[in-house]
Amino acid sequence: MWTVKVVGMGLVALSLSVELLSRLLRRLRPERSLNEVLFFPSEMACVEHIFTPSSPYSCFCSLPHGVETSFSCLLRHIMSASSTLDLCVFAFSNMDLSRAVLALHGRSVTIRVLTDKHYSAITGSQIGVLRKAGICVRCDVGSVHMHHKFAVVDGQLLITGSLNWTLTAVQSNMENILVTEEPDLVRPFIKEFHRLWTHNDPAH
Amino acid sequence: MWTVKVVGMGLVALSLSVELLSRLLRRLRPERSLNEVLFFPSEMACVEHIFTPSSPYSCFCSLPHGVETSFSCLLRHIMSASSTLDLCVFAFSNMDLSRAVLALHGRSVTIRVLTDKHYSAITGSQIGVLRKAGICVRCDVGSVHMHHKFAVVDGQLLITGSLNWTLTAVQSNMENILVTEEPDLVRPFIKEFHRLWTHNDPAH
Repeated sequence: MWTVKVVGMGLVALSLSVELLSRLLRRLRPERSLNEVLFFPSEMACVEHIFTPSSPYSCFCSLPHGVETSFSCLLRHIMSASSTLDLCVFAFSNMDLSRAVLALHGRSVTIRVLTDKHYSAITGSQIGVLRKAGICVRCDVGSVHMHHKFAVVDGQLLITGSLNWTLTAVQSNMENILVTEEPDLVRPFIKEFHRLWTHNDPAH
Repeated sequence: MWTVKVVGMGLVALSLSVELLSRLLRRLRPERSLNEVLFFPSEMACVEHIFTPSSPYSCFCSLPHGVETSFSCLLRHIMSASSTLDLCVFAFSNMDLSRAVLALHGRSVTIRVLTDKHYSAITGSQIGVLRKAGICVRCDVGSVHMHHKFAVVDGQLLITGSLNWTLTAVQSNMENILVTEEPDLVRPFIKEFHRLWTHNDPAH
């Protein structure tokens, strides 16, 4: 009888230990955060399905369809914004990227754009288009160049690299974009955006 | 006697479990890798102590001494190379950064520099200086711009961002540099460097 009790208690202790251990392991193993690198120039492919996911076969343009490229990945990351998009970019003339930002604005995503004063005025710049749509834009006037090219999506996804938001950068140059959710990397960019946004408030 | 045996075995099992668990925990908890963001323009400060760490007080220039800045951090990361430095940069005219690369070359660090053909020929470019010193340089001739600005130190530390290796970028522009050892981010840059290096081999 005594042996049965000991074995029984042993089994209970064993199952409890296994349960505790598995819970501990789940807590200790951090969820893998997104870390992705995209290189450019990007292959050319139709991106219409990213703008109209409900009817993915609606486009009959001559570009290849259903192909994932560096550019379509970049577009998807930007379009994933559900609450905020903070954008800090030197040159912004790419029509598809402009269309993405306008689409987010149409979905009531809060958008703030910080750009270089001199570049914002050149032919082809989309900054005027964004301003006309009611998107809040501020220009850096203090430095030689506001040379950043980064975006923070929903305060947790950082998109940064060498790529300006232009057609040449996407289609012709050797460029990189790094996409990460690593808090140690995202946090400083959020802080710097806040600093630059406040510093370039035209009301000051 | 039977009870003593059971208790004894229980204690042995317990101590073994504790040992196994602690080993498991040490293996599961990944060592934190370096993740750092540097913003520019950098404060101006003397960086002589980074080049001559054995005599840190040897410089009498008029710049502030003993101040850590974004630029001194960048220089330290580059100077930390002990075996290899792969550099892929659009514009390289900064004299201190050139001096750092030459110092590494003097220490027998294997250096490969990939740059933009058009920019490498402009006044002030350090590419000719590096070539004359015997450093292996290749120029990208295929794209509109080889617009990358990244370096991989010892195959494990990635330095990337918006900053070209120029004086204006360091002292006057709003720029960022991201420094990381995160393998998911470093690996693609190593692969892309290898691809570009092979692609731009003049012997091909």
